[in-house]
Amino acid sequence: MRHPPMLSFMRWCALLLLVLPLLARAADPLPSWQDGPSRQAIEAFVTAVTTEGGKDYVAPAERIAVFDNDGTLWSEQPAYFQVLFALSELKRMAPEHPEWKQQQPFKAALEGDQQTLAKSGMAGLLQIVLATHSGMSSAQFIQNARHWLDTARHPTTGRRFTEMVFQPMLELLDYLRANGFKTYIVSGGEVVFMRAFAEEVYGIPPEQVIGTTLGSRFEEKAGRLSIQRLPKLVHNDDGVGKPESIDRIIGRRPLFAFGNSDGDLQMLQWTMAGPGKRFAGLVHHTDAKREWAYDRNSKVGRLDKALSAANRGNWTVVDMAREWRRVYPFESPR
Amino acid sequence: MRHPPMLSFMRWCALLLLVLPLLARAADPLPSWQDGPSRQAIEAFVTAVTTEGGKDYVAPAERIAVFDNDGTLWSEQPAYFQVLFALSELKRMAPEHPEWKQQQPFKAALEGDQQTLAKSGMAGLLQIVLATHSGMSSAQFIQNARHWLDTARHPTTGRRFTEMVFQPMLELLDYLRANGFKTYIVSGGEVVFMRAFAEEVYGIPPEQVIGTTLGSRFEEKAGRLSIQRLPKLVHNDDGVGKPESIDRIIGRRPLFAFGNSDGDLQMLQWTMAGPGKRFAGLVHHTDAKREWAYDRNSKVGRLDKALSAANRGNWTVVDMAREWRRVYPFESPR
Repeated sequence: MRHPPMLSFMRWCALLLLVLPLLARAADPLPSWQDGPSRQAIEAFVTAVTTEGGKDYVAPAERIAVFDNDGTLWSEQPAYFQVLFALSELKRMAPEHPEWKQQQPFKAALEGDQQTLAKSGMAGLLQIVLATHSGMSSAQFIQNARHWLDTARHPTTGRRFTEMVFQPMLELLDYLRANGFKTYIVSGGEVVFMRAFAEEVYGIPPEQVIGTTLGSRFEEKAGRLSIQRLPKLVHNDDGVGKPESIDRIIGRRPLFAFGNSDGDLQMLQWTMAGPGKRFAGLVHHTDAKREWAYDRNSKVGRLDKALSAANRGNWTVVDMAREWRRVYPFESPR
Repeated sequence: MRHPPMLSFMRWCALLLLVLPLLARAADPLPSWQDGPSRQAIEAFVTAVTTEGGKDYVAPAERIAVFDNDGTLWSEQPAYFQVLFALSELKRMAPEHPEWKQQQPFKAALEGDQQTLAKSGMAGLLQIVLATHSGMSSAQFIQNARHWLDTARHPTTGRRFTEMVFQPMLELLDYLRANGFKTYIVSGGEVVFMRAFAEEVYGIPPEQVIGTTLGSRFEEKAGRLSIQRLPKLVHNDDGVGKPESIDRIIGRRPLFAFGNSDGDLQMLQWTMAGPGKRFAGLVHHTDAKREWAYDRNSKVGRLDKALSAANRGNWTVVDMAREWRRVYPFESPR
């Protein structure tokens, strides 16, 4: 059926009016970010360093972006997810370790004796992490981590842990990569644990994941080769450990860094101390309804010194409650 | 002036005949490789793993290629170039270290007393490397290395050390990258020293250089931040150290590996132990005229166990004298 020309044109206009907002949404690389100060700062920065011939232009090879993981790319409450993994693994592995029934902090962890466990402190936690993260090959450990990530559920949301990643940060990672940035994780989390999901969930390949590191040993046994994980901490990728590992492994200073806690302070300082235009950002957990609200007094992910440094240095501080249209991918945007 | 059509066509044919070999040369990604067994093995492998739909196809993300540096990408005679750098730096820095005049192995090194120096062995060499490679920031050390690389000359060829890179290997690096491979250095050389020239000379960015590693410390002094290099060996990237660092830093198994000495054996074994089609190559120094000839009995770059493993495993062994049309970029091809 043919319409008179004028009618056709009007129908076309009406259609366009319907479709335009969808097109605009499709073209928006950061749809989960409100048009607030953080989004504006990110977009202005990326435009500045990618505009050829502009005074702030930076060659693609130098566009290194580093992200903390816990509390920056995914949630970290009520405890670091990797700690929940270690406690779960301890239970799974307990039948092969009858001695744990008598030894602290294993006994307390297996019995759910939170008070004794808490008393064992960071040293106790490290023992649990080492016991569950070593004594097998890297390949086997990745399988263990993936099995847990596929099956375990978060204690309050009931979601898989890999669902509890921040949708606005996923968009930010994509946006930076589309603008020629190489995106890295630089996190206190153990590096092989993060590699078990970083590529699938964040689009960050194993070789761009830096983290806390255990000792390892190349082993040949009955003609089979493996890399065995040793119960020994060789690098704690937190605080000063972050710029140290960045210098050791990446070998150049990042142009862009995002964190959320005092453990990220030195990484952000190191990033900003370079020449030219640079970007430092913090996720500020201000949203008790959709996620959690905590900062200067939190036990997990304390944000105190880094928040003060951000205020002094004019870094970007993301107010999660106000600036994120949604927190998790499974939510509808508001 | 117009020619009769037939004459024009004949002139065009004659021109084509003249130009064709040049076009073929321009299209050849490996012009310095004779059409011998190594070149054929490389090309067959790359074609197999990059042919979409083929049974040996490997996704680009998994195309990790690792190269040793000393003896594989550049020469290593009469001594590792980094050792020559360390000895030169020792002399340059001596005025600030009057104590070296009395201390071995520094005294012997400064006086050119080869016998005493040799007696101090690997431990003595390590002392000299640590003394000249630490006690300053990473940024300062890179400047020192670049200054030496810009000014020092090889004792027998009189060339700059960065001219003594292997032209066929430069072509191989380019060829692999053009086929979607990510090229890495994994070398016993100290990592920051290699980063001082790897990007410019090999096209390998700092974050794809893995090597022997010193301790480092993030330092804030009078408001200035730096990464200070410590006189402490934290990783020896040789032998079993290579698959260990590959697993720790890259986090996946290479698909393609090239070395030249027994220090590369485990890296090559680790590469070949994975599933599917894989490539292991050795540069065999057989060319006493253009480079050096050495293998099973050499003190530098000994190739003994790895050569036997290559023969057993059907790895590619490059006969430098026969298979390379030229060794260095400054030579004309033969």
